[in-house]
Amino acid sequence: MTSPKSVDDRLKDAVGPKGFSQDPAEIAPHLEEWRGKYKGHTRLLLKPATTAEVSAALRICQETGTRLVTQGGNTGLVGGQIPLGGEVLLSTHRLNRIRHLDESGMTLAVEAGVTLAAVQQRAADHGLLFPLSLASEGSATLGGNIATNAGGTHVLRYGMTRALVLGLEVVLASGVVLEMMRALPKDNSGYDLKQLFIGSEGTLGVITAATLRLFPRPDAVVTALAAVPSPAAALKLLGALQAHTGGMLSAFELMPRLAMELITRHVEGTRDPLSAPSPWYVLIEASGGRDSNLAASLESGLADVVAGGLVSDAVVASSAAQAAGLWKLRENISEAQKREGASIKHDISVPVAAIPDFLAKATPAVLALLPGARPVSFGHLGDGNLHFNFNSPAAGDDPSFLAQWDEVQQVVHDMVKEFGGSISAEHGIGAMKVASLPRYKSHEELDAMRAIKHAFDPKNILNPGKTVPPVLRL
Amino acid sequence: MTSPKSVDDRLKDAVGPKGFSQDPAEIAPHLEEWRGKYKGHTRLLLKPATTAEVSAALRICQETGTRLVTQGGNTGLVGGQIPLGGEVLLSTHRLNRIRHLDESGMTLAVEAGVTLAAVQQRAADHGLLFPLSLASEGSATLGGNIATNAGGTHVLRYGMTRALVLGLEVVLASGVVLEMMRALPKDNSGYDLKQLFIGSEGTLGVITAATLRLFPRPDAVVTALAAVPSPAAALKLLGALQAHTGGMLSAFELMPRLAMELITRHVEGTRDPLSAPSPWYVLIEASGGRDSNLAASLESGLADVVAGGLVSDAVVASSAAQAAGLWKLRENISEAQKREGASIKHDISVPVAAIPDFLAKATPAVLALLPGARPVSFGHLGDGNLHFNFNSPAAGDDPSFLAQWDEVQQVVHDMVKEFGGSISAEHGIGAMKVASLPRYKSHEELDAMRAIKHAFDPKNILNPGKTVPPVLRL
Repeated sequence: MTSPKSVDDRLKDAVGPKGFSQDPAEIAPHLEEWRGKYKGHTRLLLKPATTAEVSAALRICQETGTRLVTQGGNTGLVGGQIPLGGEVLLSTHRLNRIRHLDESGMTLAVEAGVTLAAVQQRAADHGLLFPLSLASEGSATLGGNIATNAGGTHVLRYGMTRALVLGLEVVLASGVVLEMMRALPKDNSGYDLKQLFIGSEGTLGVITAATLRLFPRPDAVVTALAAVPSPAAALKLLGALQAHTGGMLSAFELMPRLAMELITRHVEGTRDPLSAPSPWYVLIEASGGRDSNLAASLESGLADVVAGGLVSDAVVASSAAQAAGLWKLRENISEAQKREGASIKHDISVPVAAIPDFLAKATPAVLALLPGARPVSFGHLGDGNLHFNFNSPAAGDDPSFLAQWDEVQQVVHDMVKEFGGSISAEHGIGAMKVASLPRYKSHEELDAMRAIKHAFDPKNILNPGKTVPPVLRL
Repeated sequence: MTSPKSVDDRLKDAVGPKGFSQDPAEIAPHLEEWRGKYKGHTRLLLKPATTAEVSAALRICQETGTRLVTQGGNTGLVGGQIPLGGEVLLSTHRLNRIRHLDESGMTLAVEAGVTLAAVQQRAADHGLLFPLSLASEGSATLGGNIATNAGGTHVLRYGMTRALVLGLEVVLASGVVLEMMRALPKDNSGYDLKQLFIGSEGTLGVITAATLRLFPRPDAVVTALAAVPSPAAALKLLGALQAHTGGMLSAFELMPRLAMELITRHVEGTRDPLSAPSPWYVLIEASGGRDSNLAASLESGLADVVAGGLVSDAVVASSAAQAAGLWKLRENISEAQKREGASIKHDISVPVAAIPDFLAKATPAVLALLPGARPVSFGHLGDGNLHFNFNSPAAGDDPSFLAQWDEVQQVVHDMVKEFGGSISAEHGIGAMKVASLPRYKSHEELDAMRAIKHAFDPKNILNPGKTVPPVLRL
């Protein structure tokens, strides 16, 4: 008589000899989040190569109550992908096939472990666009992008990841495979189940594949930088240019003067393209077809607002190199903040029109707690999404400044709630914000989240402790 | 001692003296669906004027197991809004306030009973666009549009209703109010609960209000009609024009020659604007900003494809009146079919690129069952959504033709499934298709739908028997 197999041995059998690792050197990079904020541990890394293997593994987990965390490219910013409680870790990196590209239907079926950059490239190879674009796109996987409903710089035109997903394949906690890969822009045949899994951060199922929407690639892309006296002026500029171009803006990014100073100080090859300093700037991008007259339209729109006094100065890129130079300013704000020293950051959103009032009220509230701190609030103004950040009073590392993070965050998040905003605009809840979520979300909403979690994962084996706050026992 | 109040008396108390009716004359128009296909009955019509009244009524329903059907403008096409089992009927028509329009944030908060036409008008009053557009927009309510995830003619550019909803207020079966009216384009703070209720046809909660996305109103709208030899040519034309205009198309509607003949025969003030007959036509609309050069762009795009032989002829409207004349052709297809006589209809979708093959295979399959029937398949080619319709062989009423509806429908729906399509592209499941849904949806998907239904409506009091097929007992 042989003794019954251990759970781990059964899981290894389920994924085959290439489908797991217990080698600490191989596992190590999966345990730490890239900024070093979260560090987990696991006894077993699963690397399934097929949906059937994921299903077999989850059946065993469900039967045995074995907890499991799913990880894509490990680029998440809230710790959702880290096995903080020693869970089994499932990496999707061998689920890496591009299953099907439909050029005339403009759809792409890919497995969860394919990187965002690979998806963008495959679309471009066919003269099409996959518009999701993130700093981490070389490593981030589509599965992770979908599980976190990733945002990025083109949400204004194309929406969040949710808007880019036509179909999903998901393995439930029970091991049941929900095959919903239909490449249909229109399908009202019952509940739209895929919506549940998008943005649920691995707590309701393991996403194994998706059918994505592709778009015609815009032949004309025009980039500009405008100097504005205030966030309120930037907001008016947004309305004026959207009306003028008929909604052709694909990016509208606010940044303050200090961001410009830090970038040009710390990042090689950057320069302020305008002749005089301005309190605020907006990076503007518009995209359209080859005959769309877009450069002239954006220029005439900007000329109108300069003449009207809304904008003090503006420059429209006249070459791809100039456009890249303008984008380099926007893309290096985080890097410049880091080189300057310690900073406290928030990923928040408020209604678009409330951005000026929020900045006017929240900035002094933070400065009351952090005297001398230097505000570097920037972000996707067109989406109501700010990276509401503060550098320490002096350049360099400052542990005592960073020690105030939690206190500052609560003040900021309380004010976000007052404005009807969100404490997580694009990064998610994960481990980072799960404890504070009950302060900002109604108990009715939390109960509804728990009801869904319980319906799909009654044993709480999928990413336990993340995203869904437990019921508080008093 | 007084006897305890009846359920109906408690419900009447909950909504106040103006909030109910038991007058048969007042109730009658709510009981019959506008085409006369579904007729229900009820003992009590509730007309709550506030979310609190809806909540109070639902608490009583939940406590007493009283079943309830919600109705907006009673324009649904699948019987979802009709109390077929004698349920209490809740009409949203007194939930009719426009709560707030944010012009610079381009959002609009409205209650569920506001009509789509009123929403469009309010947006237009502020120089903005609410792009949802339906034949029934004068009566259809936003609550109903959201509950059924309505489609319409501008889905290609702006998406289904789901894409237009930022926030929702929903009363659950328990009477609990989920207030999720945040006007946030970006919010990743936990599960996106509102998605569950959009398209759930009143089976998971009563939608009482919504925050809608508005858009810049396009100053330039160009309309054209192109003659193409085949659906395959139409599909190629779609790709060519999307690439040429950089994705500016806002409608792309296929129609066959017979549709043109029936319209010009039956509908006054219509004419075929092209000199020679063509087997197929496409109505094309593109929308953009005032400087967008759109007419020239569409004309040059069409000239290219005419020169290349893809399109045999095309006309671009040179005035608003001409554009309206072209749209009149498309909008009167259903009316012309009706005036011609009996027809059997389907609201289906397949992947966009599969439309030509589907038509080539499904049309003869139907004609084998209906010898001599006349195909009038038209619809939203750009969305993969066809109204796959057949008029009877001869003009006039033909009950024996219509008697074959169910048999024909099953053949069509079976083929839709083969093509990875949907048996309901935009009308929903309601009462009409609930019995056949298990043939076309996997049991895993149906089980997931039931799990959600059970989590939110454990007593099955909300629109019972609609949308969610019961478990079959063998």
